[in-house]
Amino acid sequence: MKTQRGFASDNNAGVHPRVMEALLAANRGHVVAYGADPFTAAAEARFREHFGEGARAFFVFGGTGANVLGLQAVTRPYHAVVCAATSHINVDECGAPEKSCKLLPLANPDGKLTPALIEPLLSASGDQHRAQPRVVSVSQPTEVGTVYTLEELGELSEFAHARGMLLHVDGARLSNAAAHLGASLAEVTAGVDVLSFGGTKNGMMYGEAVVFFDEGLARGFEYVRKQGAQLPSKMRFIAAQFDAMLSDGVWLENARHANRMARLLAGELEGVPRVRITQPVESNAVFACLPPRCVKRVREEFFFYVWDEAASEVRLMCSFDTTEEDVRRLTRAVREALDG
Amino acid sequence: MKTQRGFASDNNAGVHPRVMEALLAANRGHVVAYGADPFTAAAEARFREHFGEGARAFFVFGGTGANVLGLQAVTRPYHAVVCAATSHINVDECGAPEKSCKLLPLANPDGKLTPALIEPLLSASGDQHRAQPRVVSVSQPTEVGTVYTLEELGELSEFAHARGMLLHVDGARLSNAAAHLGASLAEVTAGVDVLSFGGTKNGMMYGEAVVFFDEGLARGFEYVRKQGAQLPSKMRFIAAQFDAMLSDGVWLENARHANRMARLLAGELEGVPRVRITQPVESNAVFACLPPRCVKRVREEFFFYVWDEAASEVRLMCSFDTTEEDVRRLTRAVREALDG
Amino acid sequence: MKTQRGFASDNNAGVHPRVMEALLAANRGHVVAYGADPFTAAAEARFREHFGEGARAFFVFGGTGANVLGLQAVTRPYHAVVCAATSHINVDECGAPEKSCKLLPLANPDGKLTPALIEPLLSASGDQHRAQPRVVSVSQPTEVGTVYTLEELGELSEFAHARGMLLHVDGARLSNAAAHLGASLAEVTAGVDVLSFGGTKNGMMYGEAVVFFDEGLARGFEYVRKQGAQLPSKMRFIAAQFDAMLSDGVWLENARHANRMARLLAGELEGVPRVRITQPVESNAVFACLPPRCVKRVREEFFFYVWDEAASEVRLMCSFDTTEEDVRRLTRAVREALDG
Amino acid sequence: MKTQRGFASDNNAGVHPRVMEALLAANRGHVVAYGADPFTAAAEARFREHFGEGARAFFVFGGTGANVLGLQAVTRPYHAVVCAATSHINVDECGAPEKSCKLLPLANPDGKLTPALIEPLLSASGDQHRAQPRVVSVSQPTEVGTVYTLEELGELSEFAHARGMLLHVDGARLSNAAAHLGASLAEVTAGVDVLSFGGTKNGMMYGEAVVFFDEGLARGFEYVRKQGAQLPSKMRFIAAQFDAMLSDGVWLENARHANRMARLLAGELEGVPRVRITQPVESNAVFACLPPRCVKRVREEFFFYVWDEAASEVRLMCSFDTTEEDVRRLTRAVREALDG
Repeated sequence: MKTQRGFASDNNAGVHPRVMEALLAANRGHVVAYGADPFTAAAEARFREHFGEGARAFFVFGGTGANVLGLQAVTRPYHAVVCAATSHINVDECGAPEKSCKLLPLANPDGKLTPALIEPLLSASGDQHRAQPRVVSVSQPTEVGTVYTLEELGELSEFAHARGMLLHVDGARLSNAAAHLGASLAEVTAGVDVLSFGGTKNGMMYGEAVVFFDEGLARGFEYVRKQGAQLPSKMRFIAAQFDAMLSDGVWLENARHANRMARLLAGELEGVPRVRITQPVESNAVFACLPPRCVKRVREEFFFYVWDEAASEVRLMCSFDTTEEDVRRLTRAVREALDG
Repeated sequence: MKTQRGFASDNNAGVHPRVMEALLAANRGHVVAYGADPFTAAAEARFREHFGEGARAFFVFGGTGANVLGLQAVTRPYHAVVCAATSHINVDECGAPEKSCKLLPLANPDGKLTPALIEPLLSASGDQHRAQPRVVSVSQPTEVGTVYTLEELGELSEFAHARGMLLHVDGARLSNAAAHLGASLAEVTAGVDVLSFGGTKNGMMYGEAVVFFDEGLARGFEYVRKQGAQLPSKMRFIAAQFDAMLSDGVWLENARHANRMARLLAGELEGVPRVRITQPVESNAVFACLPPRCVKRVREEFFFYVWDEAASEVRLMCSFDTTEEDVRRLTRAVREALDG
Repeated sequence: MKTQRGFASDNNAGVHPRVMEALLAANRGHVVAYGADPFTAAAEARFREHFGEGARAFFVFGGTGANVLGLQAVTRPYHAVVCAATSHINVDECGAPEKSCKLLPLANPDGKLTPALIEPLLSASGDQHRAQPRVVSVSQPTEVGTVYTLEELGELSEFAHARGMLLHVDGARLSNAAAHLGASLAEVTAGVDVLSFGGTKNGMMYGEAVVFFDEGLARGFEYVRKQGAQLPSKMRFIAAQFDAMLSDGVWLENARHANRMARLLAGELEGVPRVRITQPVESNAVFACLPPRCVKRVREEFFFYVWDEAASEVRLMCSFDTTEEDVRRLTRAVREALDG
Repeated sequence: MKTQRGFASDNNAGVHPRVMEALLAANRGHVVAYGADPFTAAAEARFREHFGEGARAFFVFGGTGANVLGLQAVTRPYHAVVCAATSHINVDECGAPEKSCKLLPLANPDGKLTPALIEPLLSASGDQHRAQPRVVSVSQPTEVGTVYTLEELGELSEFAHARGMLLHVDGARLSNAAAHLGASLAEVTAGVDVLSFGGTKNGMMYGEAVVFFDEGLARGFEYVRKQGAQLPSKMRFIAAQFDAMLSDGVWLENARHANRMARLLAGELEGVPRVRITQPVESNAVFACLPPRCVKRVREEFFFYVWDEAASEVRLMCSFDTTEEDVRRLTRAVREALDG
């Protein structure tokens, strides 16, 4: 099969060798399906080790499932979830979250929410005609690659809790944020109530986790997961992957590498005339404006997405297996396209 | 990790070596996510080869997702799906299908539907107070291991189509039914409109397919799948598994073996006094009544499910990796428990 | 406009004069919409007077809305509601309740549930693959006109509560049941958690009430009602009707009259050869088997429903405005059709 | 009961005398429930007379029901509805529309959508990750009282149809728009596919209509309505009200009067210093900025809503029964509050 190096997304990469080894190792004998197996128990323990003793992790197939079910678990159908207009749950999940509860999207240039942005929405509280704000959902890192500082997250958490609301984090790339912040997974989720913790984009084949930081919020989630068609029968194979990722710092190694490649790429591109980096590079994404004709020509060689057609802004994602050579080849292609 | 041989379900088994090889082989380079990759194209072609040129396959994570979304795709919210009371969609999907449309479960001893059973339900047609029957859904093989003959399926198909209804098949174990019938996958799905085709229970790690046999019914399914949280990002890894399964007759080999082990097991158990086989053994399941005390003791050694507590009836599932030794050990354990 | 006396349903009748007077009286000046008006406050107080100080009533447009939202309010999407197979929620609401949670219908000849019938369903509790039984829902009177005794209801209530479940009553005709039992509305709802209390079938133009007998269960119901499109803007006109019904015993007078007419009708029909009354007449319904040709001829003159085509069993409903003359004319028509 | 004149909403008014007469007249004898009665047939004919022979009207209880079900009828769950950020469906229906499909709200100062505003959203078409735009929904008049010209509506209709989309109109106050435009109901709905036609706010007790302008779109709506809990059993009483409204120009008379009172009110308020009218007065709404202290004092006497707290902008609605004396009393109260 023909493959092609690219910067479209970290999910265009394959599976990290350590993860593949774990899959092979888990493939022996019979174990009970649906999570009552020793591989799952081991992986759950690994989550408690990294996220704190009170953390309760549930494994699911994919990221949309993790977000949708995590939110559904803590809301009633008349609740609303405050989120960034650019957030994955608002833009890229085909209306799935709204089957559970209304989204209240907020426009914001850097992908981040703040208490000041959210506050005006809360005037709907107590009005029977309006969906009731119940959750603040943020992506960490954001969809434009920026990372909330621990202080920013702490403020959002305090703000939400003071109003009887919860803080949800879409952490499909949480490892990249933690790597950027130099923080542990526990530190980067302090004050968080529900988390989607991504595995696939950081080197797993498939599998994400919904993590609740309060036993009460997790109550009944096994039914939510099953009804949501996110209960894997051969659970051991997701569990084994997570166990491998959370052992020997594989998760951090992978994330650091992807972040480093992004910084390298941004640095290289900054040196190219008529290219402008448009967002701070704080995770594994580089956002850049390139002349439209250049975009067109470079995409013939490398696959990546145009983020904003009007502005000719592209998104370039690095992954655990992006090489310096990849970066240099892309930069060269950009230069040549500009010169051409 | 400790594993334990058992007969609980074919999903307690691991991954077939040919499938694992395919996963390893697919793990190189970058490919576009979400299905626009050469692995997926190849697997889709493989489905057309086996199910007919008009068949359109969509890969999803799991079996509940396959059933729920396949049914949702061809119904409106006010439609109803006629099914067996014992069917997986009615019993074992935690109410998931009902979020899309009402189920009309029919009691039946052998797990099979017939036109005569369905006919009385159709008096609801045209009555605005009642959910409108739109789909007949059958499991092939049924949940009690019996297999519809090609004639029986043909009659159901004709019956449904004559009334403007569709035929859906939950084929989580369709390969076992085809093996039993000595029919090709195309033959065993003649007259079917929508199919859930199982991979996991027949030796895959994860992954099922929703197959539409009419282009019109498939329209928009990519959105249904994404909204239903069943669009895998690293699609190549499901595609590669299916490609392996549908090459060199792996699917058939695995199913035949599991069926053979079930027949062997039934034969052995029939020779044991006070054990009664309760359903014809037509796929990889054996249903048997054992004295309650015997059940209790054998379960200490082998994991399996009690199907009907009151009747002390158990379900014993064989899988692609069940060995003759497994069967003999189980039979011996039953004998000893009875003697003990 | 041409009207025609009939026995199809108590909702084929019009509006009781006292209710119409109340509507006229309420039609003056401006009041705040959506329930923050003095008419609504007065009607709510009337409900507390009749159902007990802890009862919290919410007015809605119709009966399907009352049932669906009352159940939705006390369940999570993975919960199940145990009900009779013949129940209105299972048969006549076009699949509406299932959008909230799964129904577990139980076959039963007299329309009544008992603890013994329900018990086997509860084995699903704690199994993540199955919708979790949370509510027992009964119709009082049942769809075949039978009435639970206070003891029977008490047992169901105790049974449910002992298992962490709730008791819901579809009381679209609760007044008829109370009239039959000679019990107050408080007595007939002892042990009930959620009630749909019918107005329309007992002489109102439109309007039903969802009554919660526990403040905690009512929490958030104003949002459930609005989202369920059951929040009337000119609420005063439903409130005024209920206030009139619950004043001076209008509700009881109407129900008693309808019940009396049903008994009269049953008595008259019992004297007719080849007619067989099939259910005890305990409310305002008469179920009877008549020869098919007779059914056909009588329906030319009077509108009513065939309940069971195969058995040639019809349902004859009396209402607050059914006259003795109506009853005699129908009986005469039956006799003539049989003779003819 | 204490009532209080106000300008909160046109649904704070009662029932027009002609409507009340029709209710009294319809209250005789028995008729078949759920719409198979002569009153409903007559009202349906009246709709065809006013909206065109191809119009198919379905009566429902309320406005949220009309909007939600009209949209649900013409969409699949993965579709999206483009609407104004200020629209009733986005703001005031407690998240109800989202249970059917995603909303794509557009910010706009005057409450109106235009092709230019909508166009950028359509880039989502064909992307499986995004809800697919299927309907443009506008309120006529808008929530800020402005009225689309026939040309503006025509452009939106052409724009939508050219892209395979439909045009939905929330016409809870459509009569006021028609009165403003001097257009017939047929003219004001030219190019519209689905309409919510309001009765309650223009002098009915309850009842709205969903009108389809294409037979194909209406297919199956009787089931959508029933499942949506919007099928009134005593349908004749909604039908009779609509029949009265659409006879002898009652609908137009009422709307004209309310509009005239709004213009009078705006005219009076314009003469008051420190009061600023903020939107063109094209229907029965007046939006005005008043000093906060003044708002507070006037609300002690008259009930009305603050539209924008920050701007101290209020919304004053006139209804069919608003009198010149009401207008003068309000204006006087404003003056006194400013002077006080």
